[in-house]
This record gives sequence, structure tokens and C-alpha cells, in this order.
Amino acid sequence: MEKFVYLFSEAKEVNAKILGCKGKNLAEMYSLGIPVPPGFIITTNACEFFFKNEEKFEKEIESQIFEAINNLEKITGKCFCSSGKTKNTEPLLVSVRSGAKVSMPGMMDTILNLGINDKAAERLLDITGKREFVQDSYLRFIQMFSDVVMKISRSDFLNILGNFKEKIKKYKDIYKNKTGKDFCEEPFEQLFEAIKAIFRSWNNPRAKIYRKTNNIPDAGGTAVTVQAMVFGNFGENSGTGVAFSRNPITGEKEIFGEYLSNAQGEDIVAGIRTPVHIKDLKNQSFSIWNKLKKTSEFLEFYFKDMQDMEFTIENGKFYMLQTRKGKRSAEAAIKIALDMVSEKLIDEEEAVKRVEPNQISSLLHPDFEKKEIEKSRLIAKGLPAAPGAAVGRVVFDTEKALEWASQGQDVILVKNETSPEDIEGMQISKGILTSCGGMTSHAAVIARGMGKCCVVGCGDIKVLKDHFETNSNKVLEGDYISVEGSTGKVYLGKIKKNHSKFSENLNKFLKLADSKRKILVLANADRASDVKKALDYGAEGIGLCRTEHMFFESERINFMREMIIAPTKSEREAALEKLLKFQINDFKEIFKEIPNKSVVIRLLDPPLHEFLPKNKKDMLKIALDLKISTEDIKELTSKLSEVNPMMGHRGCRLLISYPEIIRMQTKAIILSAIETKFSNLEIMIPLIGDVKELKFIKEIIVKTADEIISSYNFNINYKIGTMIEIPRAAIIAGKIAKEVDFFSFGTNDLTQMTFGLSRDDSQKFLKCYYENGIYNSDPFTHIDREGVGELMKIAIKLGKNANPSLKVGVCGEHGGDSESIEFFTKLGVDYISCSPFRVPAARLQGAVCEIKNLFFE
Amino acid sequence: MEKFVYLFSEAKEVNAKILGCKGKNLAEMYSLGIPVPPGFIITTNACEFFFKNEEKFEKEIESQIFEAINNLEKITGKCFCSSGKTKNTEPLLVSVRSGAKVSMPGMMDTILNLGINDKAAERLLDITGKREFVQDSYLRFIQMFSDVVMKISRSDFLNILGNFKEKIKKYKDIYKNKTGKDFCEEPFEQLFEAIKAIFRSWNNPRAKIYRKTNNIPDAGGTAVTVQAMVFGNFGENSGTGVAFSRNPITGEKEIFGEYLSNAQGEDIVAGIRTPVHIKDLKNQSFSIWNKLKKTSEFLEFYFKDMQDMEFTIENGKFYMLQTRKGKRSAEAAIKIALDMVSEKLIDEEEAVKRVEPNQISSLLHPDFEKKEIEKSRLIAKGLPAAPGAAVGRVVFDTEKALEWASQGQDVILVKNETSPEDIEGMQISKGILTSCGGMTSHAAVIARGMGKCCVVGCGDIKVLKDHFETNSNKVLEGDYISVEGSTGKVYLGKIKKNHSKFSENLNKFLKLADSKRKILVLANADRASDVKKALDYGAEGIGLCRTEHMFFESERINFMREMIIAPTKSEREAALEKLLKFQINDFKEIFKEIPNKSVVIRLLDPPLHEFLPKNKKDMLKIALDLKISTEDIKELTSKLSEVNPMMGHRGCRLLISYPEIIRMQTKAIILSAIETKFSNLEIMIPLIGDVKELKFIKEIIVKTADEIISSYNFNINYKIGTMIEIPRAAIIAGKIAKEVDFFSFGTNDLTQMTFGLSRDDSQKFLKCYYENGIYNSDPFTHIDREGVGELMKIAIKLGKNANPSLKVGVCGEHGGDSESIEFFTKLGVDYISCSPFRVPAARLQGAVCEIKNLFFE
Repeated sequence: MEKFVYLFSEAKEVNAKILGCKGKNLAEMYSLGIPVPPGFIITTNACEFFFKNEEKFEKEIESQIFEAINNLEKITGKCFCSSGKTKNTEPLLVSVRSGAKVSMPGMMDTILNLGINDKAAERLLDITGKREFVQDSYLRFIQMFSDVVMKISRSDFLNILGNFKEKIKKYKDIYKNKTGKDFCEEPFEQLFEAIKAIFRSWNNPRAKIYRKTNNIPDAGGTAVTVQAMVFGNFGENSGTGVAFSRNPITGEKEIFGEYLSNAQGEDIVAGIRTPVHIKDLKNQSFSIWNKLKKTSEFLEFYFKDMQDMEFTIENGKFYMLQTRKGKRSAEAAIKIALDMVSEKLIDEEEAVKRVEPNQISSLLHPDFEKKEIEKSRLIAKGLPAAPGAAVGRVVFDTEKALEWASQGQDVILVKNETSPEDIEGMQISKGILTSCGGMTSHAAVIARGMGKCCVVGCGDIKVLKDHFETNSNKVLEGDYISVEGSTGKVYLGKIKKNHSKFSENLNKFLKLADSKRKILVLANADRASDVKKALDYGAEGIGLCRTEHMFFESERINFMREMIIAPTKSEREAALEKLLKFQINDFKEIFKEIPNKSVVIRLLDPPLHEFLPKNKKDMLKIALDLKISTEDIKELTSKLSEVNPMMGHRGCRLLISYPEIIRMQTKAIILSAIETKFSNLEIMIPLIGDVKELKFIKEIIVKTADEIISSYNFNINYKIGTMIEIPRAAIIAGKIAKEVDFFSFGTNDLTQMTFGLSRDDSQKFLKCYYENGIYNSDPFTHIDREGVGELMKIAIKLGKNANPSLKVGVCGEHGGDSESIEFFTKLGVDYISCSPFRVPAARLQGAVCEIKNLFFE
Repeated sequence: MEKFVYLFSEAKEVNAKILGCKGKNLAEMYSLGIPVPPGFIITTNACEFFFKNEEKFEKEIESQIFEAINNLEKITGKCFCSSGKTKNTEPLLVSVRSGAKVSMPGMMDTILNLGINDKAAERLLDITGKREFVQDSYLRFIQMFSDVVMKISRSDFLNILGNFKEKIKKYKDIYKNKTGKDFCEEPFEQLFEAIKAIFRSWNNPRAKIYRKTNNIPDAGGTAVTVQAMVFGNFGENSGTGVAFSRNPITGEKEIFGEYLSNAQGEDIVAGIRTPVHIKDLKNQSFSIWNKLKKTSEFLEFYFKDMQDMEFTIENGKFYMLQTRKGKRSAEAAIKIALDMVSEKLIDEEEAVKRVEPNQISSLLHPDFEKKEIEKSRLIAKGLPAAPGAAVGRVVFDTEKALEWASQGQDVILVKNETSPEDIEGMQISKGILTSCGGMTSHAAVIARGMGKCCVVGCGDIKVLKDHFETNSNKVLEGDYISVEGSTGKVYLGKIKKNHSKFSENLNKFLKLADSKRKILVLANADRASDVKKALDYGAEGIGLCRTEHMFFESERINFMREMIIAPTKSEREAALEKLLKFQINDFKEIFKEIPNKSVVIRLLDPPLHEFLPKNKKDMLKIALDLKISTEDIKELTSKLSEVNPMMGHRGCRLLISYPEIIRMQTKAIILSAIETKFSNLEIMIPLIGDVKELKFIKEIIVKTADEIISSYNFNINYKIGTMIEIPRAAIIAGKIAKEVDFFSFGTNDLTQMTFGLSRDDSQKFLKCYYENGIYNSDPFTHIDREGVGELMKIAIKLGKNANPSLKVGVCGEHGGDSESIEFFTKLGVDYISCSPFRVPAARLQGAVCEIKNLFFE
């Protein structure tokens, strides 16, 4: 018979998948001799069994739980106050907590003080003489049980007055009112109901969203830890705390955390009472402080990572309730990783893996411009819980946040305290501001994990239903505020932002990562200013310089329109001639910015009709400018409009129709390169589907370029490459590869066409796909490995076979996505190119993938 | 040194690729002892050399030609009248003709009587005493040389009066006027210029169009045959004729052709003089007739095919000038193939290969309805040159024909005679009518080859610039006429047509083909009437029954619109319930029509917005009908409109969004099948890209169907299949195959997405692709083997590996295209499904491919 229940003492060799992360770590601490209240773990397998069995318990599981409680009674010398039992021992109360393989803080449920009933309460009172303690424990339990098992809102229990007995009675009456049943007095029944409810909480909406957001699979289920209670609410000599072994915001090597005396653990996380700084504990009890410090150091040494710990002090005795890998800000992650290398706790490879590439971007979050800050009105200051700078409209609930965000509005979620129900709202908000709670409150922990700007415990503000107040201001829903996460400051109105520079640590860390990385990280940049930014962020070249932007700007678009309207080749050439000087100028500026690295320039890609005016006013203006009738413009626009523009007259198709564009662009590129003595040119042809298209265009490029080059005394070894963005191109990649120096996968279009899925149109029905589990993620965000990926694999194989010196890159949106980069590394892609902002994360991810040694199966 | 010139006597072992078809057959006849004027062939390699060498001759080629003429002079005892030579022998005149590997009748140029000049003419006159013959020969030569070499229009030589010397002088003056040079008197110079011109004629526009139309590659070039002249214009005892060894219109076993006395060959083909029937030759000279008959029989036996022959009689002596495989009408092709099997000339397999699948469809060309004919006014009657019935507007030139046809108009090309310049116009006309020319004139031969209705030699009409006249009628450009190719009758106005039944021979022939075929031929049919037609044409089942048409018809579309507008699922279901009875009715009618064969029904495919009104008037009507505001309709329409509808919310995506459609359609299908006791059901799901989409829909189909089936006492073993029309589906075909019974490739959409090419938008730029040789053909007409084909290959391999009992078919437009069918056979496709009209051709093509034993490499 399968073992579904493990005592801590039995669990040392069992893995976290079975025990859950929390259970596993408790068992581990137990075996290390760290003071942990005794208990046992019901496995994730039991949870899976429960779901398969129509949410019923196997008899076998029940009997293993009975046995485990029996054991617990023996170890503690305490006893469940079942109605049958008449032993006069001290009552056994237990905590019942969830704990999946991957920690999901606050997502699932916990019940404390289980086992209490009238009889137990009476005995406890007899033994301890602490009425307040017993009442607090009992009321808490009724409330938690009602909430977790019966879904009775906690607010139903607010403002109940009376003496001990009256309050208990009123609480139980509320329970009976809501459920139609008497409150359950039998400890085992309480326990079984609690376990089932916790199993079920695996599938509550916020847990699902959390898993989706964090890419945690929906299979697996949660384990349940049942542990003898130790009471932080036992009086002034008791308390509870949360501590990190290093500062999770800055990464400093110091114990960081909070402590509440005479309280149970949930009080800190929930943010109801604002706790004191952990260092104050040192003054209160040096011996406890010392125990905590020693335990913290030991656990960090043992687990080789920064720990997030919960502890409780019962009547002066120190207990550890939990330890786990601590969440940390990106800044802290970097500092800790670097420090641990210096401390020889971990090696360089491990350090690189310790920072989530996605976190890196949060370090590039803009700061407010100093000058702008000076002009702005500071209205409040709270705790700086997560760095960054956010500007947005004030909202007071998740619903509104979602609604406004879906309309493209930036919002800042303002609450007294956040709770797990707010996860979605936090996700889409630019920043979070709470009036209560400390640095380890729900809002603070979650926001740091999300890399989201967050200010908590901002007592300066009073949050009401549709506005918040400070001493001198009233801020309504919809008003703009600006929040600075690194200082805790809140300003009225919008403040302009600028890009922050890399910190010294980030630079050091990314250099370390670079030393482990093989895949090249280039950037997409169309303008000199973007090129500069890309280089600042560590790009090793420009992997995609789109030239169409050069045609859209103010006075140029008219020449472009002239070209489109021109009825003959020579008139088109005349219009293009006017564009030539602009292009030359643009390219020269770019080349000057990046003298020693390569630049991939893509020839004109979009359909012509994009250059035509869309509304009447613009049409009129253009008709006047170009001296033709608006009728003609209308006719032309309608002639150029397409049923499926995505698959229409664009890219190389346009270039083949109007080879004079190829000649003009080649001329501009080559002349600017010669003038700036730039020689790392790569010219890229878009939308190739057939090798003959490529040959046609290549011939014109080569002829045009070589004619110019031969008349100057500067040699340019320009390369020619092609986008692989049409499924057919991937299939005939062998033929194409013989004609080019490089491939660049345009994974956006390749995804659209491989799926037959228009990016512009699919959002409205993809929601239904997610709901039904048909797609797990948006294929435009994470590369589809099975379909698009397989095509890429085919193309790379054919391409490199046909041309062993072929370079292969990716320049679609996926080039900056960590999950996709992992796959590209497996495929043997030589470079990725992403927007400058995503370059640092990509540098890290490239290194992580190399270290994970994920080679192509 | 390569041999570029072969005497007939040297050429026996050399192939037609080198000698051209005409030259090869002449050499063959020569070696068989058939009387052929002596000559030699300049090879196609010489032609290719010429083009590679900037249209100049190699010295080597020139010297080989000199030597060959030398030889010819020896054989004939005649001699080129070069200015240098002073021999007093009879002048050698030669014909210079083109002749490529594949015969292209009338497409390239011919020059007769070359070698004539003033001196030769004088001697000929001395020797023959026939002034008229010499004059005719000389003038013809000047005209032909001017035309072919110097591009001087033949019409420039019309109506020149004078005596012999005056006329010659005037002709030469015209030449000098146009070219600035004296007419060339030197035979060798004449010869070299003529050969070059004929080489060049390989690339004249009409030859190019002919090759494109007939899928002949542009590489290869033409050979040139130089042959001693025999003179059909030598007097009354001379003449020239064209004969087929069997009747090319009906296939009857009889000599068929025409004869003109005292004429040269071109006179017949050009249709300038109307010749006499070949049988009249029997009366004129039985011995000549007998020689022709014997030769014809022998050549047919030797070549195992019907022959198209040219012969000339010079002063009572019979010469063969050409033999080749004869073009024939579809009807004749079938009769000849069947007869030759009976005659044991060829076997069944060969017989099947003898009919072009594309020709078959011409046999299905509609006839005029008898009743309608009786009511119509017969205005003229000509020779029934090619069967069929055509209705269209009269046009008098190719330009107008192209213009009107491009606007979607049906046109009938009416001319005195057609010439090679009219090929394009004939191609797009519905029918051809000429006033001159016989059954072997240009118009007749070409139209038969095209399977196009044609009436020639219609002396009842007089064709003028912008109208034609009969005795009592004047028909203007743009007027409708109706032309009956099988009777030669021309009617005024439009006559209604009906589909012709299969002839007995066609039936017999297709049954023969069926016995050789393995691939199944199914039809696409959405309505009971189409199903009937498909079965009449021999379809072995329905491979695609689209259900969307069932939603578009008058009163139904309103229910469909109700469904789209319905805000809730239950309201949608109510609207669908109203559609259910229509669907049941439609399916029942279909099933009744086809009790014993299978029907593949595809669930709803098009995007919802196609059901919404497009213009204001319709919007208003619908608003009234559905009792909502036009504003709402507008809003909905704009909400449903898509940027790229091709890749939008359609097919299985729609079904997943509205599963109630799946349930309704399944219910309709299963209930109708039960009521009609139909059990060969196959349900097909469109636009699948991921196996989870398929599973989602399949589950609903199975649940719905099985619930209904289990409540009735009739068992239906319905099958479930999927379209493979999205590139991704092909790539993950292994997974998909495990869930389905069959794949049906939707090659239209698969082509669109594999190429990233919108069918609706591509026509405007594909022209440029053809001109630049980037595409050879429209990928929507002939399957793209390299790209789309490769994806199909991948899908079939993965699919059949994963599910060995998987059936694989094609239901796109390509299913009816011969070239594509050949490829599908190679791929191991189990069935093709095409429109009913294309079924007979597909049956034949399936057999041909099987015989050609084209198995998958």
C-alpha cells in the first residue's frame, strides 16, 4: 500500500514533488536538529488521488492520518479533545498548511489552532490561565475554518462584541446561519474537512492565475503539512516573525525582516498590524536573536541560497516554522549572486543561474527625471518595498484596474492592504501603493516577485472607497499619481521618466554572464539613438535595422507617396532620388554610432498602401501637396487595399515589382558606408519564399553595390542575407542557403503563417483557447516549439548542410523572450536580435542556457 | 568538333531533341524509303550555340552548312546560283523550315524557294518555260524572306501590278525602301540570314505564348531543316496537300484532308484559298491517291499513331514533306485510342495514355437546348471544325477579345482567317468563327487542340472592320451570337445550354481507364443536384460537402444572423434550432441521392462576418427583420471585421468559440443519416492547427452523435477526419493522425499559408513574377511540389506512420488538375476530390499516372 503520510522523521529521503516544498524543508530542518514543532506531511499523491476520486478520501489515506495523529500525540504528550476520548491530557492543536512542489506564497490556504473546541478551550484555560490567548486562538480557528472550508467571508465576523463565551457563541451562530450546520466540534472531522479544503485550494482562481503567470504546470497538486501548534499569541513573551537571511531588496548581507509580539504568523503576512523591524528583536531578547541569526546562517550555508524563514516564539522558546528560498528584487538577486561567489558559497555558473533573466528588465525600469521631481508635489511617503518608478491613474480595485488597463490606460492600484484576490490587478498595474503592511506584507512580497514598483505601509494616506486622502490632498479615482518604489515617495500628477543606467553590480554580473555565453545578442534598432541605447545595454551589433521608418517621417512620406503615385518607372526613380539623401543621412548617423560592430539592414518591407493616407483630412492635404485630385488618391488607395495585407504585396514582392527601390536603397547603404568608412554591412531581404525571388534581388544589389564600390577606394565586404519568415522558405532553405551569408528568422510572421493565425485578429478568440486549455501560452510571446520550432529546425538543418558557413539568427519578438531563447540555443541559432531594452535579459538568458547545457536532442 | 549539320542519310540514330520533330521524322521517312526531297538538318544545339554566342554563327557551323549544300548539289545535280559560280546547271532552290523537339505548328517561320535570284529565275524560265511558276516562286520568296528576316509585313506587298520584271522590281524596291538595303541575291547569304531568323523565331511572342499554354519548356531551341524544293506550284499537274491518316474530328478510320492544285504548302494552312476535299484527289489521280493511302497506312503502322502529313506533287511525282503525330479532337482521340486497341496496334495502357486528360472536359462542353435552337434565328453555316457550343459577344481582334474577357465577358472571335498572332485571343474566346480556310486551316487545327468550339470557312458571312454581314443580317461588334461547333451553325443572340451526356465511346474509354486506376476520384458537391451530376460523371463518392452554403440561402441567412447577434449561448442555441430543420432536409436529400457511396461533410468553415450585410440597404432590412438598430448592426459588423480574415476567426476556431454549432450540425447529420438509412458518413473538421483543437471538437461530435445513435435502432459507423490546410497541421500530422480516420489536404489554403500569399491579392503582382521567370505557373493552379508538396509529403509520412489505416485525400482546387494529380499519385494520396465537371478528366489522369508508374522516389 502506498505511503500517503510521512512523519517529519520518516521524510528525509522523500523528494519535494511528493512532500511539497514546505514539507520537505520542514523535514530537512527536523533532521538537521533545528527546533521545529513536530508534525507530518500528507503527500501530493494523496491530493491527486483525491481529485481523481471525485474529491473523496480513500479509507487508506484516512487511516494513515489517524495513525500519524496518534504518533503526534505520543511525541507531544498532548491529545485531540475528541468527544469519545476522556483523557485528561493537554489538548493537541495543530496547524494545517498547504505546500506544493513549487512555493506559491499566499495562494493556497492555511488553518491554525485546529483541534480546538469547547472542551479543549476549557482545558487550555485551566492549564494556561490565559483567557485572552485561548479566546484569540479559538476565534481565529472558527474564522479560518469558516473561511477556508465553508467560504464564509472573514468580514462577516467583524465587529462582534461580547465576553469570551458570548463571542464564541456569536461566531458559531454566524457559522450556523451561513451553513445550516452546527460548528464542528470533533477534531478529526475538523482535520479531514480542513485537508480536503486545502487540497481544493490548489484549484482556486488565484492559485491558477499564479501558476499561469509563473509558468507552473497545473498538474501536481499540493501536499498538506499538519504540525503541532506553537503559540506566538501566548503573551508578551511570545511572538512571531518573518526573516530573510539577506536583505531581499538590496541584497545586503544582514538579517532582514519583521517581528510581531503576541501574534500568530498570519498577522504579519496579512499586513493588519504593522510589525517592528527584526533588529528590534535583538534588544528585546539577545538569546532569541542569536538563535535566529545562527539558524539563518546555517540554513543559508546548508541550502546555498538566501532563505525566507518563519519563526515563532512561544513563551520564550524559539521554533522554526518554515524556510524556503527567498524571493528577492532583481538588484538583490544580483548582489547576492555576486557576493556568494566571493564567499565561495557558489560557483560562477550557479551565480548566473541565480538571477531570473526576466527580472533584469525591472532594473532598467525608468527613474523619474530629477528636474521633474523638483517641480512635483510630494504628497506621501511609505516603505520602499520594490524599486522602480510608476505613473498611472489611481484605481481602488482589481476589477477597475483590469477594465482600464484593457483600454490601454496605465493604472496604479491603491489599497489599504492587498490580498491574494488582487494578484491579477497587481499584475497589470504599473505600480502598487498600500497604506498598511510592512516590507514582508503580501503586497511587498508579490510586487518584488513581479519586479513591480511598490510602496507599502504608507500611513500618510487614508484609503476610502473612491478616493484617498492625505493631510492636504484628496486624490480621486482616475487621478494621476507618480510612485517611486526605491524611495517610497508618492507624487501628485505625472512625472517624466528617463532610462536608468546600469548599476555597477549589474554590469559586473552581466559581464560574468557574458563570459559563459556563446549565442550572440544583437539588437533591433532603426535610428542612431536606438543604436546608442542598444550598445549601452550591451548589444553586440544591430541584428535588424528596419528601413521603412525612414520613409514614414514627415517630409519624407510625401516623396514616398510621390513614388507610389508615379505612373512610370522614371518618375518613380525621380521621387526615389529625393528620398536617397535622407536615407544616406540616416545610415551615416547609424554607422557613426557603431563603428566596429555589424549592422543588418533590411530592405523596405511593408505594403505600399501603408504609406497612403487613411482619412479624408490627410487625403485632402496630400492631394494639395501632390497636385492631384482627392478622387485619384481615393482610387489609388482602394486599388492598393488588400483583403489579407499580411500575405499581400509587400517585402520582396514589392522590391521585385519596383526594382528601383532596391537600387536606391543599395546606393544609400553603400555610399553611407563608404563615407563613414564602415565595413560591417549586412543587407537583408525580407519575405523570401522562393530562391528565384532572392536571386533576382541579390543580382540587383550586387550589381549596384559593386559598381559604386569599384569607383571608390574603400573596400566593403558587405554580406547578403534573407529573412526566413514564410513557411515555404524554411522548407526550401537548402536552396536559399547557397545564395546567402545568413538567415534571420522573422518568427512573428513565421508564427502567423505557420499557424494561419493573424496576430491582429486572433486576440478575440484566443481567450477561449486559453480557457479550454487548447493553447497554454500566446505563440507570439513564447515560440511554438512543436510547429514553428520544427520548421526552424528543418530550415537550419537544410541551410547549414548546404552552406556550412551560414549564420543563423532570430529577429522576431521571440528573440527577447527567455523561454524562446532557451529553445533557440537548443536549435544552434548563432544570434538573437531583440529590442535594446531586452538585451540585458537576453545576455543573461543566453548564458543560463549555455550553462544548463541544453544541447539539441 | 561537334556535328551541327546532318544529312537525312546520316541522321537515323540521332534523336528528336537534336533534330527537332520535323527533321527527325523526315530522316526517318528517308531511311524507310518514302519519297522525300533530299536535305539536311541544322541541330537544336546549333540554335542554343547561336543564342549563347550573341546571335552570331560559329565559323564551324557555317562551314558544315557549306559542306551540306555541296552535298545537296551533288545529290540533286542542281546548284546554288551564286554570283561566283558559273556552272550552267539547274538552279538549286531550297525550303528552310523550323522544327523543335515538340511540334509547334505555325508558331515559327518557314521560307520557301530560297536560292532564287535574277540569274536563277532566268535559268528556271529557260529550263521550264513556265513564266507564271517562276514568277510565283520568286515573288513568294521575296515576300517570305522580307517577312521572316526583315519583319516587313506581307500586306505591304498586296496589290502590286505589272509584268514579271516590273513586279519583281517593285517587290525589291519595297524591300529596299523598308530596309535601306538591296535585296540579297547571294544564295548562301540568303540561307544564313534565313537560318538565323528561324532560330530567332523560337523566341517570338506567339511561340512563347504557345509554349506557356502547352507547358513546353523555354529551353531547347529549334532545329532548321533545309530541303531541296519540290514545286506544287509547277502547274495543273502539280499541287500540295495536307492529310490525316484518320479523321481528326470524329476519329473515323479514313484519310482526311485537303488538296490544292498548283499551290505551295503554305496556301492551305494560311486559309487564303479554300482547298478541295482530299477524296477528290482520288478522281484526279488514282495513282497519286493510292501512293498517299499506302504511305499513310505504313506511317501509322510504323509510328503506331494517327499521322498528320504534308505532301507535294511536282509534275505528277509524289513527295512527302512532313509527317507528325496528328492533333485531334477529344472525341477523335478517344475513338482512335479505342479502335487502335481493337486493331491490336496498341495495348490498353497505351490507349489510356493517348488521350490528354484536359481534353476530356471539352467533351462535357454543353450543347444548346433543342427547344431553344428551334426558336433561334440561324444566320450562317460553315465547316464544323471543332465541336462544342459557344455563346458570346462578337469581337474582331485579339486586343478587344482580351480586353472584354478580362472584364468577365464571354467573347467569340470572328475573323476572315486566324493567324499565329491570334493565339492569345483564341485562348480566351469561348468560340471561333472564320469566313475562310478549311478543316485544316490554322483556326481549325489550333481550336481543336484547345478543345475550343470552332466553325471555319463560313462563306455565308463577310467580315468587315467593326461588323460582319450575312445576306440578311448585320452583326455588330458586341452583339451576341451562338456558335455550334459540331454542326457549323451560327445563330443570332444567346441560346441556353445544357450539359451533354457522355458518349458511348467516352464511357467505354473512361471505364477502360478506371480499370487501370488506383487513386479514388471523389467530387466536391454541396447540394443534391451537384451530387447527382458528380455521380453521372463517375465520381466514387463525395469528398467535400461544404455546409456553409446551407446557411447562406434566403430565409436561412436570417436565422444565421440571429445566431451571430444573439448575446447568450441559449439565444444562439434557439437560433440554431431554427436552422436545424433546414440542415436535416439538405442532408437527407443528399443522402438519398447517393445511398451506397461515402460522403465527407465539412463543418462550418467561413468567418461569421461573411454572414453579415455589406451595404446600407441590407443592413436596414436586417435591422427591421431582427428588430434591432442599424447602429447595432454596424457596430457588430465592424467588431467582426478582420485585418486578415483568411487567418482569422473561422473554421475550427469558430466551432470552438461556439460549440453549439458543432452540436447542431452533428445532430443534423446524424438524424438525417438515420432517417435515410445512410451509413457512409464522414465528418470533417476544418482549419485544424493543433491536436487539442481537434480533440475538443471531436469530443463534442462523438458525444452528440453517440447519444442520438444509441437512442435509435440504426447503427452508423461515422468517421471523423480533418482538413490539413495549415502548415502547422502538416508538421504535427503524427499527433493529429492518431485522433482521426482521414486527412483531407485543403491545398488552396495550404498554398496560401505556405507561400504567405493571399490568393485574393496576389494576382496583381504575380504577373511581374511570370515575366521575370520567378514563378513558372500559378501555384493555385498547379500544386507547388517543392514547398507545399514537401509539407504534404511530411504530413503523409508522419500521419501514416502514426496511424497505418489513415486515409489521405486532397479536396482543394488542385484535386482536379492533371499536373497536380500526377504529383499526388507519387505522394501516395488515396483519393482526390474535385468539382463534378472535372471528375472525368481526373479519372483518366489517375489512370495515366498509374500507368506511367510514377511511384514515390
